[in-house]
Amino acid sequence: MKPDGGNLIGFGSSGPGGTVFKAFNPATGERIDPGFASATSEDVDRAVQLAADAAPIWAKLSGRKRNEFLRHIADSLEAKSADLVARAMLETGLPGARLQGEVTRTANQLRLYGEAAERGDWLDARIETALPERKPLPKPDHRSMLRAIGPVVVFGSSNFPFAYSVAGGDTASAFAAGCPVIVKAHPAHPGTSELVGRLILHAVRDCGLPEGTFSLLFDAGFEVGQALVKHPHVKAVGFTGSLQGGRALADLATARAEPIPVYAEMGSINPVFILPGALAERRVAIVEGLHASATLGVGQFCTNPGLIVLQRSAEAEQFVRELTAKLAATPEGAMLTAGIARNFAANVETRTGQPGVKILAQVAAKGACGAAPAWFETDAKFFVGNHALSEEIFGPSSLVVWCKDRAELLQVAQALEGSLTATLHVGTAEAGGSGELVDVLAAKAGRVILNGYPTGLEVSHAIVHSGPYPATSDGGRSTSVGTRALNRWARLVCYQGFADELLPPELQNANPLGLRRMVNGEWTSAAVQ
Amino acid sequence: MKPDGGNLIGFGSSGPGGTVFKAFNPATGERIDPGFASATSEDVDRAVQLAADAAPIWAKLSGRKRNEFLRHIADSLEAKSADLVARAMLETGLPGARLQGEVTRTANQLRLYGEAAERGDWLDARIETALPERKPLPKPDHRSMLRAIGPVVVFGSSNFPFAYSVAGGDTASAFAAGCPVIVKAHPAHPGTSELVGRLILHAVRDCGLPEGTFSLLFDAGFEVGQALVKHPHVKAVGFTGSLQGGRALADLATARAEPIPVYAEMGSINPVFILPGALAERRVAIVEGLHASATLGVGQFCTNPGLIVLQRSAEAEQFVRELTAKLAATPEGAMLTAGIARNFAANVETRTGQPGVKILAQVAAKGACGAAPAWFETDAKFFVGNHALSEEIFGPSSLVVWCKDRAELLQVAQALEGSLTATLHVGTAEAGGSGELVDVLAAKAGRVILNGYPTGLEVSHAIVHSGPYPATSDGGRSTSVGTRALNRWARLVCYQGFADELLPPELQNANPLGLRRMVNGEWTSAAVQ
Repeated sequence: MKPDGGNLIGFGSSGPGGTVFKAFNPATGERIDPGFASATSEDVDRAVQLAADAAPIWAKLSGRKRNEFLRHIADSLEAKSADLVARAMLETGLPGARLQGEVTRTANQLRLYGEAAERGDWLDARIETALPERKPLPKPDHRSMLRAIGPVVVFGSSNFPFAYSVAGGDTASAFAAGCPVIVKAHPAHPGTSELVGRLILHAVRDCGLPEGTFSLLFDAGFEVGQALVKHPHVKAVGFTGSLQGGRALADLATARAEPIPVYAEMGSINPVFILPGALAERRVAIVEGLHASATLGVGQFCTNPGLIVLQRSAEAEQFVRELTAKLAATPEGAMLTAGIARNFAANVETRTGQPGVKILAQVAAKGACGAAPAWFETDAKFFVGNHALSEEIFGPSSLVVWCKDRAELLQVAQALEGSLTATLHVGTAEAGGSGELVDVLAAKAGRVILNGYPTGLEVSHAIVHSGPYPATSDGGRSTSVGTRALNRWARLVCYQGFADELLPPELQNANPLGLRRMVNGEWTSAAVQ
Repeated sequence: MKPDGGNLIGFGSSGPGGTVFKAFNPATGERIDPGFASATSEDVDRAVQLAADAAPIWAKLSGRKRNEFLRHIADSLEAKSADLVARAMLETGLPGARLQGEVTRTANQLRLYGEAAERGDWLDARIETALPERKPLPKPDHRSMLRAIGPVVVFGSSNFPFAYSVAGGDTASAFAAGCPVIVKAHPAHPGTSELVGRLILHAVRDCGLPEGTFSLLFDAGFEVGQALVKHPHVKAVGFTGSLQGGRALADLATARAEPIPVYAEMGSINPVFILPGALAERRVAIVEGLHASATLGVGQFCTNPGLIVLQRSAEAEQFVRELTAKLAATPEGAMLTAGIARNFAANVETRTGQPGVKILAQVAAKGACGAAPAWFETDAKFFVGNHALSEEIFGPSSLVVWCKDRAELLQVAQALEGSLTATLHVGTAEAGGSGELVDVLAAKAGRVILNGYPTGLEVSHAIVHSGPYPATSDGGRSTSVGTRALNRWARLVCYQGFADELLPPELQNANPLGLRRMVNGEWTSAAVQ
């Protein structure tokens, strides 16, 4: 399996129309063959028209069929993982074991969302049967559920070439919800994207699904992505990346004649609050755990802990000294792209010059896209008054904020912007008194972690990967990970006074799909009598 | 109970700071005492700050307590309905019986949403227990649910002085979800708004809730509403009104440093498709039913049927003749405000001059704010090509679209924009062959009605009052009526690795609130073992 550099437009391919670009090996600084052709505006139109044609067929596709399709993709990802990982290693510089693990996670995610589609709980099917004799007015029969929203555009992310890219969480949840998908490949790993895209297209054919089910477009710049978001037939957008990029797409989508939702997960600073009792009980373990979390993948996780909040004490200073020593001894790593490495260096330099900020640990990197830990410290009074210190630095950089006391620590918590996660370490005796801090953190983050670390994300029914703006563009009302992710790609439809045979099977009296439905106020899997 | 014209800011009142305006009796054209003072920017700040202070208390308030509060408001609305209806009759010109019915509906809506809050299904509580021995990595404990989003601003509507105003659906659902509410009163019925607002404040005191639970602000113009939507402490907005107004607020909200959701229900044309078999079987009944639906409340319903789509035939022409005769004999009514009456007249005049459009029935009105039916007809080929014919005329005006055949009828359906409702009348033998048309209509509307009429809305668990843009600003993903309306005012929060006593009661092992929760993938009301 080798990429050939063409856009995948349904079952066809584009001519070499747009600007050609090549992938880049961040470990060696070399360009990698083949060239990839940016999609033309005709390619965009064709991909979207195919998706629009497929949308009504997809909206009616059974959950079982969607599950079959997603399992097929999952199986082929695993079967071809050696080829996929080999190409992804070249394009991302990430270690093979990490990428192999990501393929497995991506396959499991596809299967979980497929199961959710077949099970159909997420549809929130509800039935209120008629009361024709009710006074003063008869009550009509009402039956409602979520229905697929239509063609979805997914932007692949730089830092998860599998789990948040072509067959990643947004694509898998959109398919599971019944939507055709057009992926705009991230230019950092076009070859990996093409290989995964071809596996999806094989599954489309093997499952007998319409051509417009899936397309994959390349873009050297921003034009293709913008054209997709503005296209009238596109009904929703999924994005994982920077605040700047996500906000730009969201603004573009809300400025349309018909505004559409953009579900952008835009990263965050993921504050970690460590109370004195936690340090007293397990200082050394927290040094280890936090160091591992903060340096994992050269800090290129949206859940990277970027802010460490401490009450000043001899023990806390000892903690920071031990952490700093470990950071100073951390080898540099290659970042995902030259652009990310440049941004990291520039952001670190800016932070170095900010009032009240001191360097804790800073290691010079030598490789083509190399980066090594750059940690800073400041006092709560500087943090609270200076918004720039709340900005995420994507990469292995964190800011330690020193607080005089618990009150100042609470002030820092209250001054936080939205974040994907917030972490709290407490000692055994401190837990009971932490309720207020927990409530403040729960108002600021989509996931609050007790005595753990923010990196690592369980894909499950209960997980939330979300948070108030700027962590996400929709203010944390939805999640991009977990089975609730399906809900993003749907709208509510109610049928009033319908004959059973004209209803979708999900709402028919006999409950042929065996769904859990709310019938006259009670949840049941039984048929309607 | 008499209004005194002051803004209600928590338990306090504003000084007479801003522009003073009076209500207007649309039936007589007279101004009504007292004067109402537009809120100042200080009033806005104070109301929002109080709400922000109350928000953390409200977020933790039990569902039972919220239910008690909502029932209290419902009871006092009913107890004071004579005073409320008397004032509303003066301010709206609507008949007393209609307003009395609306008070009852509003009270029942408050009770239903209160029950939903106590029952807690809407929270979508989910628990995945830890698997500490899992390989290669242990699985942490995750527990998640919806949590109140914070202070909500509600814009009262002109056409439902109770059900979509101060204590209406948006306010009731926001309280039920755990959010403090600031209402911007509609200037067409400020006295009614004040009286209802005072009842809410009595309930706040009687239930021992914080002062910032509720405020009511008046505005002669747009400044107060805009200031509220832009205020950093406001977290979501509910609006019922025009497309122009809703879109302006949504654009303002997305342009904020921290964008917030605006749930705007902006009306629609509510197409009615009538197939030949329906006319053959029950032509006279449909004339009656459609005439009643289209002229109810002088056509001032967001579900008013504004587009009637027919296949041309002798019977269809007879149907339109009979309908036209009834319309021509329909007495004029007073519209809600002079501005609405002026807009109606202007829109009717514009439509009269459009290419391919002919007048079917047009009755001249004489009253101060009077309006009488103005119906038009056109051919499908004109409708499909001319976007202006898809625009809603708020009031008793509809457009009949003639189609040559079933194919053209389907074309008209496919050309529709988003709508709150779409109605289909079929004959007995036609139902089976209507699947494609039903699917197209379900892609265009939040509620599809078979053999019924769009006006009249059951407030229930299963109802959907929503639709793709421009019917709503959020593309029909949520509903403003029914118990699902609570979901709009919340965001997802997940707790990882938490000690039971630090969790909200909704997620504790013992399930002290008896909620239905998803535990390790299965729905149950049992405690976690």
